Amino acid sequence: MIISMRPHATKEQIDHVCERIREFGYKVHSIQGEERVVIGVVGVGDVTACLESLEATPGVESAVRISAPYKFVSREFKNDHSVLRINGNEIGGDEFVVMAGPCSVESERQIMETAEGVAEAGAKMLRGGAFKPRTSPYDFQGLEVEGLKLLSKAKEATGLGIVTEIMSDRDVDLVAEYADVMQVGARNMQNFALLKSLGGCGRPVLLKRGMSSTIKELLMSAEYVVAHGNPNVVLCERGIRTFETATRNTCDIAAVPVLNELTHLPVVLDPSHATGKRSLVPALARAAVAIGADGLLLEVHPCPEKAFSDGAQSLNLEEFRGMMKMLEPYISLWKETRAAAAVPAV
Amino acid sequence: MIISMRPHATKEQIDHVCERIREFGYKVHSIQGEERVVIGVVGVGDVTACLESLEATPGVESAVRISAPYKFVSREFKNDHSVLRINGNEIGGDEFVVMAGPCSVESERQIMETAEGVAEAGAKMLRGGAFKPRTSPYDFQGLEVEGLKLLSKAKEATGLGIVTEIMSDRDVDLVAEYADVMQVGARNMQNFALLKSLGGCGRPVLLKRGMSSTIKELLMSAEYVVAHGNPNVVLCERGIRTFETATRNTCDIAAVPVLNELTHLPVVLDPSHATGKRSLVPALARAAVAIGADGLLLEVHPCPEKAFSDGAQSLNLEEFRGMMKMLEPYISLWKETRAAAAVPAV
Amino acid sequence: MIISMRPHATKEQIDHVCERIREFGYKVHSIQGEERVVIGVVGVGDVTACLESLEATPGVESAVRISAPYKFVSREFKNDHSVLRINGNEIGGDEFVVMAGPCSVESERQIMETAEGVAEAGAKMLRGGAFKPRTSPYDFQGLEVEGLKLLSKAKEATGLGIVTEIMSDRDVDLVAEYADVMQVGARNMQNFALLKSLGGCGRPVLLKRGMSSTIKELLMSAEYVVAHGNPNVVLCERGIRTFETATRNTCDIAAVPVLNELTHLPVVLDPSHATGKRSLVPALARAAVAIGADGLLLEVHPCPEKAFSDGAQSLNLEEFRGMMKMLEPYISLWKETRAAAAVPAV
Amino acid sequence: MIISMRPHATKEQIDHVCERIREFGYKVHSIQGEERVVIGVVGVGDVTACLESLEATPGVESAVRISAPYKFVSREFKNDHSVLRINGNEIGGDEFVVMAGPCSVESERQIMETAEGVAEAGAKMLRGGAFKPRTSPYDFQGLEVEGLKLLSKAKEATGLGIVTEIMSDRDVDLVAEYADVMQVGARNMQNFALLKSLGGCGRPVLLKRGMSSTIKELLMSAEYVVAHGNPNVVLCERGIRTFETATRNTCDIAAVPVLNELTHLPVVLDPSHATGKRSLVPALARAAVAIGADGLLLEVHPCPEKAFSDGAQSLNLEEFRGMMKMLEPYISLWKETRAAAAVPAV
Repeated sequence: MIISMRPHATKEQIDHVCERIREFGYKVHSIQGEERVVIGVVGVGDVTACLESLEATPGVESAVRISAPYKFVSREFKNDHSVLRINGNEIGGDEFVVMAGPCSVESERQIMETAEGVAEAGAKMLRGGAFKPRTSPYDFQGLEVEGLKLLSKAKEATGLGIVTEIMSDRDVDLVAEYADVMQVGARNMQNFALLKSLGGCGRPVLLKRGMSSTIKELLMSAEYVVAHGNPNVVLCERGIRTFETATRNTCDIAAVPVLNELTHLPVVLDPSHATGKRSLVPALARAAVAIGADGLLLEVHPCPEKAFSDGAQSLNLEEFRGMMKMLEPYISLWKETRAAAAVPAV
Repeated sequence: MIISMRPHATKEQIDHVCERIREFGYKVHSIQGEERVVIGVVGVGDVTACLESLEATPGVESAVRISAPYKFVSREFKNDHSVLRINGNEIGGDEFVVMAGPCSVESERQIMETAEGVAEAGAKMLRGGAFKPRTSPYDFQGLEVEGLKLLSKAKEATGLGIVTEIMSDRDVDLVAEYADVMQVGARNMQNFALLKSLGGCGRPVLLKRGMSSTIKELLMSAEYVVAHGNPNVVLCERGIRTFETATRNTCDIAAVPVLNELTHLPVVLDPSHATGKRSLVPALARAAVAIGADGLLLEVHPCPEKAFSDGAQSLNLEEFRGMMKMLEPYISLWKETRAAAAVPAV
Repeated sequence: MIISMRPHATKEQIDHVCERIREFGYKVHSIQGEERVVIGVVGVGDVTACLESLEATPGVESAVRISAPYKFVSREFKNDHSVLRINGNEIGGDEFVVMAGPCSVESERQIMETAEGVAEAGAKMLRGGAFKPRTSPYDFQGLEVEGLKLLSKAKEATGLGIVTEIMSDRDVDLVAEYADVMQVGARNMQNFALLKSLGGCGRPVLLKRGMSSTIKELLMSAEYVVAHGNPNVVLCERGIRTFETATRNTCDIAAVPVLNELTHLPVVLDPSHATGKRSLVPALARAAVAIGADGLLLEVHPCPEKAFSDGAQSLNLEEFRGMMKMLEPYISLWKETRAAAAVPAV
Repeated sequence: MIISMRPHATKEQIDHVCERIREFGYKVHSIQGEERVVIGVVGVGDVTACLESLEATPGVESAVRISAPYKFVSREFKNDHSVLRINGNEIGGDEFVVMAGPCSVESERQIMETAEGVAEAGAKMLRGGAFKPRTSPYDFQGLEVEGLKLLSKAKEATGLGIVTEIMSDRDVDLVAEYADVMQVGARNMQNFALLKSLGGCGRPVLLKRGMSSTIKELLMSAEYVVAHGNPNVVLCERGIRTFETATRNTCDIAAVPVLNELTHLPVVLDPSHATGKRSLVPALARAAVAIGADGLLLEVHPCPEKAFSDGAQSLNLEEFRGMMKMLEPYISLWKETRAAAAVPAV
């Protein structure tokens, strides 16, 4: 921690700050600058508590943490990529994993047709919501248990792993029975009760970035899951909220390499929510492969204009096939890069 | 709804769109412009489903909803202010209500001292967290049930109503036993499982605006609670996330009159979270009174520099007394305005 | 400056950084933490150059400036409020100054009628654009010189000082001939060529905050004007750009007390641009008085629905009179507060 | 235009609105909905003036433009890509154009070494600032005319075209004498005086997106240049300002395909400003090629840690060579895609 005192802080204030720092078990390194005193705080202790205390102490202008607030998810903790095995596939390793399917499970026919279509085109996992977070209480809220059962059927028929959303800590056991991956939606990224309960769910977690969450907050939410016992977390960039309205969200694509520098966890990108527009999805998917994401999460529906939700950003099966075909040479380059990177980096 | 077709949409596309609209039970009013066809959709039906479908239909450039997506919380539904009676006080009526207390309940001594201090200075309700949403899993998570019990003690001693946070739909019954008002934090504003369960909790709900939520989304979340059976919702502006870092959040103070135009629900402002800095709280509190908020929610701690959390934005008891004194003439003006407004406006 | 080295920075990297710091004429205070080395940089020198250099140096994780980047505009430089005398009025002193008028000067009749109306209602200055920054090249660009002349006429008739916008360093002499205050619009807040030229214009400058500019950047732009010879700058908060669309901009009202802590320059608020909606202007104006702004800049038009621009956010003359009347008791409280604050603060 | 009346608008208000619309020369199509009247406005006229007027008219809830506000830059005006010939290279055509060089021209040695290095590695144009927009008046402001002359020398030696920034309409002729491309920086994107003067400068313009400008505003600024006589504009995405601080800006990479749908103008991406961090530049450059940008604008310096500005985001020459090598297979795929797209799209 670095504590900056105000320019005219008194000696008493400075002494008091130093005393408080020592009470927290830290050592004090005081630097007398031209205008103010800056205090370096060294040692091991409860960083947040000390920081919050000092911020509230008279004479202090700012208190800044230097070390990362997360531990288990950091590159310092584990320097090589985490590879998760899910339903026979690896994510974070040598395969680029495409997870595709409808926003919501709507009917047996719809989910089976989609599952078969995306499997044939090369997807490895099927996404589909049984519990749906909808902005309006009057909109379709999902088929719930019935939807989970249909996903199981689709898995049986196609072998695809299932990614589906969990919305409440009350439903963890139920959803874990059917899901290969427990998806946490953007709106629940800081639902800490849910994150804690996923620590013991026995399934990998796909954690979507909150629409106004920083990369650091995303990592802190992942840390919640890991600290509560579950090391298998996949992060997902899905666009953030900005002033731009030409797209549904603004895809922060640079978050992918930033996350790769900070964490060993796999990172996937969701070009459907990031853009909100079907016509933009293939181009952004291409960019996601090129920038080094570990996979894609995207929306596919057999008939987007009849979808209960998110039709405007869903590819139909033919468009999905076209996109997968178009991605092939980019995925080949991705594999070469991945293979080359396996050689220890400096 | 207004559907804009692309400039070069074909006749087949336009006919197909009109047909889809009629399938949803609406009537079609087609307008041939210079560059494109625009279609007005009239009638009663499932607006969202129709909208989402049309957005995904070929040839459509945009589909825009005209009517408000919320109903019960709107001024169209109820044109006069909702007045909530809580523990003997009215909010939304002729009294400006101050809710004050620490971020977290930390100990019996801390909460009792705070409760007595704020009551004496004129607060009508005591805020204090027993379940705490913390960004880091390693930070103090609240005293939980023990904290709720301490709040009850403080209520007994001072008569103050209790506002405390609820973080999971699993804890609704427990928290409702102790709380006069169930607070939903900014991070849970779109935790729809929680919102639904609060529909039946039997207590008023204080709904804080999500840090990147629009005013419309705030109203939709309130609509969830109301539509699930609980008409007693208080809205709270607490700052939104922007690029500015001089304050913890950016207080969208104009949200107060905007909400007053759109909804009959009471609106309070939280100057502590909105600024994150103790020195700015009194000035912003003054502005909140002047702009016509129904009350304030703010953080007070007997010794901010020893607070477990949010010390930097907490007033101490003396500062709180000073602020309350300073607000008096502003609250007098507020009451005059309120009384004048009771005469039907044009 | 505080330089944080990466956790695994080598001794060579650390030594090289220390050497670079010394080359810039600074002293080095190195602190060995648990995970990394942090280096305090002390002394007087070219902070930006040193900072930028270190940020680009291998092994450095971050380089953070501690001292403020501005000097003349800071409270450290001058601890009491700057009071500007403009056309017989004082801004920044004991009078709350209202500057009102149309977005654009449109005709003699329009500007004369407005000037007389706002003067009668208590405004001290007349605003009105002769050079208009318009998003579209096809929109009305202002009457230019003709508009300036009409403003002069209005000044003669009413005695109101003139605030008008300057858009290019080429027009400084021309505009200075007619204007009492040279307004720099939000879009030109970082037009550094313009700012420099205003250093020698001989007129006070009203500097509007850029729509995505931080408070620090606003102060840096003011510093440009002052450093180039003109100490008379008034700052204006007029709303920033965020994700919220219910208002044209989001009024960062807390910027007023933040600026009062950081700078001695006067600060006014523009409730017209901050909201974009006539119905919200009076409430926000009230809040601006209450929070301690030095004045208001707002749009008034004799017939808003015939305005060439910004009609939706313009009050008509009757509404303006009503607002001025309503503000009276708030301005009385403002004066009491101002008088009390003249007693040296602690 | 579509005008939505308020739910309880009176017949008089509706009639008045219709009359106003007719006064502007438009036809009225009125639709009576369940809750309100919506009016379609059809015909040719001054859209902005009519829109602004109606927004300010009593009883109107909103007035929305349907047609695009720009004309010459739109796909409706010209459906195929504009290809600009600059110093023997084509941008917007079959070549992916890399423009590289230092943030500022600092010395003859620096610019010559950079120019030779980037030319050898495959860049086609040299970027470098002679006039520098700096946040602080105390920072290096550029070598000005001396810098322009050094750029000319570098051009003579290497054959590279020159891209350099223009900051004031006063300097247009001077800069045009030396530059092959006139760069407008993000902070000047809405410096309309400058944009107008560039309409007659006789050089292509590289227009950088303002840090909080929408895609539509970027196109409107391009329209300024084109409407004033200069059809040769290249757009540049360089990151927008958001709440995220892990990167200097947030790269809105989806703006590339969005712009490709809306305009025929070439679009390049600046991964240096978009990230602010050298280590992220190559990955983002790869994504820019993959998503279909027409080129890159990036910062290269022979010794970033001695750069006067932007060192942290500048590649050194070896890193630049490495990046260019790494991009090769992606550029090959880009060319295949470009060639395939030359076949008329549906």
